Amino acid sequence: MDKRAIGVFDSGVGGLTVLREIIEQLPYEDIVYFGDTARIPYGSKSPQTVIKFANQCTKFLLSKNIKTIVIACNTASAIALTNLKDNYDVPIIGVIDPGALGAVTATNNNKIGVIGTSGTIRSDSYQRKIREYNNKAEVVGVPCPLFVQIVEEGWEYSNVAELTAEKYLIELKEHEIDTLVMGCTHYPLLRYILKKVMGDNVKLVNPAYETAKSLKKLLKENNMLNEDYKKPSHEFYVSDAPEKFRRIGGNILKMEIESLEKIDIEKY
Amino acid sequence: MDKRAIGVFDSGVGGLTVLREIIEQLPYEDIVYFGDTARIPYGSKSPQTVIKFANQCTKFLLSKNIKTIVIACNTASAIALTNLKDNYDVPIIGVIDPGALGAVTATNNNKIGVIGTSGTIRSDSYQRKIREYNNKAEVVGVPCPLFVQIVEEGWEYSNVAELTAEKYLIELKEHEIDTLVMGCTHYPLLRYILKKVMGDNVKLVNPAYETAKSLKKLLKENNMLNEDYKKPSHEFYVSDAPEKFRRIGGNILKMEIESLEKIDIEKY
Repeated sequence: MDKRAIGVFDSGVGGLTVLREIIEQLPYEDIVYFGDTARIPYGSKSPQTVIKFANQCTKFLLSKNIKTIVIACNTASAIALTNLKDNYDVPIIGVIDPGALGAVTATNNNKIGVIGTSGTIRSDSYQRKIREYNNKAEVVGVPCPLFVQIVEEGWEYSNVAELTAEKYLIELKEHEIDTLVMGCTHYPLLRYILKKVMGDNVKLVNPAYETAKSLKKLLKENNMLNEDYKKPSHEFYVSDAPEKFRRIGGNILKMEIESLEKIDIEKY
Repeated sequence: MDKRAIGVFDSGVGGLTVLREIIEQLPYEDIVYFGDTARIPYGSKSPQTVIKFANQCTKFLLSKNIKTIVIACNTASAIALTNLKDNYDVPIIGVIDPGALGAVTATNNNKIGVIGTSGTIRSDSYQRKIREYNNKAEVVGVPCPLFVQIVEEGWEYSNVAELTAEKYLIELKEHEIDTLVMGCTHYPLLRYILKKVMGDNVKLVNPAYETAKSLKKLLKENNMLNEDYKKPSHEFYVSDAPEKFRRIGGNILKMEIESLEKIDIEKY
């Protein structure tokens, strides 16, 4: 058994949807979470910059004595995972592999859609990984940059959300996909509108849920689970605006964010 | 006369709408432009972080032998102008003062609306400055964070743009404003929708235009105009994704961006 914490990072609060699933499935693990709120979003930045930022996040988490790292950000997983695995010895998992596996398990007609930020879709990571798991799969990726802002405005159930979804998803409807990967941490909050626009027959895959499942499996197989069944510690760090993170993050996590500190990520 | 360049900075390409007005009104001035594309946007970040970033932008421009600095970003102007003026000797102007002056000149009924990012509106800078120029003015500020993404998607004329504008502007219509300050560099590109939703009687104030006017006046009064009437040099620097900047920026500027370099802003 390994009592050290699990390190989790994201460009901001979005990764808390992943953390929520981790806490649900691994309730006794200590957590160190970092949200890079000073430089959010990653989804529109270049690969070089995302890789640089992800390395700084990793170095910061490693300074906190953690046993594994979860990249709770689709863009950073898509672009930086290989680089981080090459650079550091600690086990690192992203959300793409688990999400892709979830999609090939869910599909019946082998037609899969992926939505995400421009960075995630352009990287082709989901598309490649899905084809690797199922070489008959037809995968169509569509970047949906407005969705994050719509969620951050609290407009998930508005006519703006519906009209935007119709504009973005028309191509996926034409392809008659039966499975849709919500490839950005904010998108599960738009589940209602996505279902409404795509129809009830399309299965929505949430990589956050699949990632927590993979993490549990990884820890179990490596005898790294924390089997000390007491109240775990959850530490949060951000690079900007801790109070905003506490408020919005608390809503996403459905629990109070207590231990929270602002750090200077440019030093790492 | 002063042949040194004018330094201009923004969080990304948005400030090019200000630069376009400067080039139009001051066609013989050399320009050094910096766009902080690695850390865009500023509008949702905390005041401390915006001040830190603005100081780094200023230090970078000062390394380029410039005679004056224009903050071509509403958020940074609203939050960091006073701090920058305290820290550096070179004349620095932002877009808020000129925009506010434009608004009080335009209004007849003294009811003025301001739209901008969350950072700009929350700072209360436009509102305070407008009341300083006209103590009878009633000013209502509304943050419109989705507008930037809508412009960046090229959806300026879409029904999503119109519906979003209706949602954001309803409060301003109820206040019967006769003048609306477009307090974010991207918003002039939404002029058509703003007019359509607000009605033809509402005057739109573009701080980019007013800022170029103020800059020209400042240089003239201080004998700092470049009166060497030859083709000027325009140098561009960004902290990320130069090719994307070249493409989108060229469209905004309506001219080719030739001299362009990526720099590491965290070093300043």
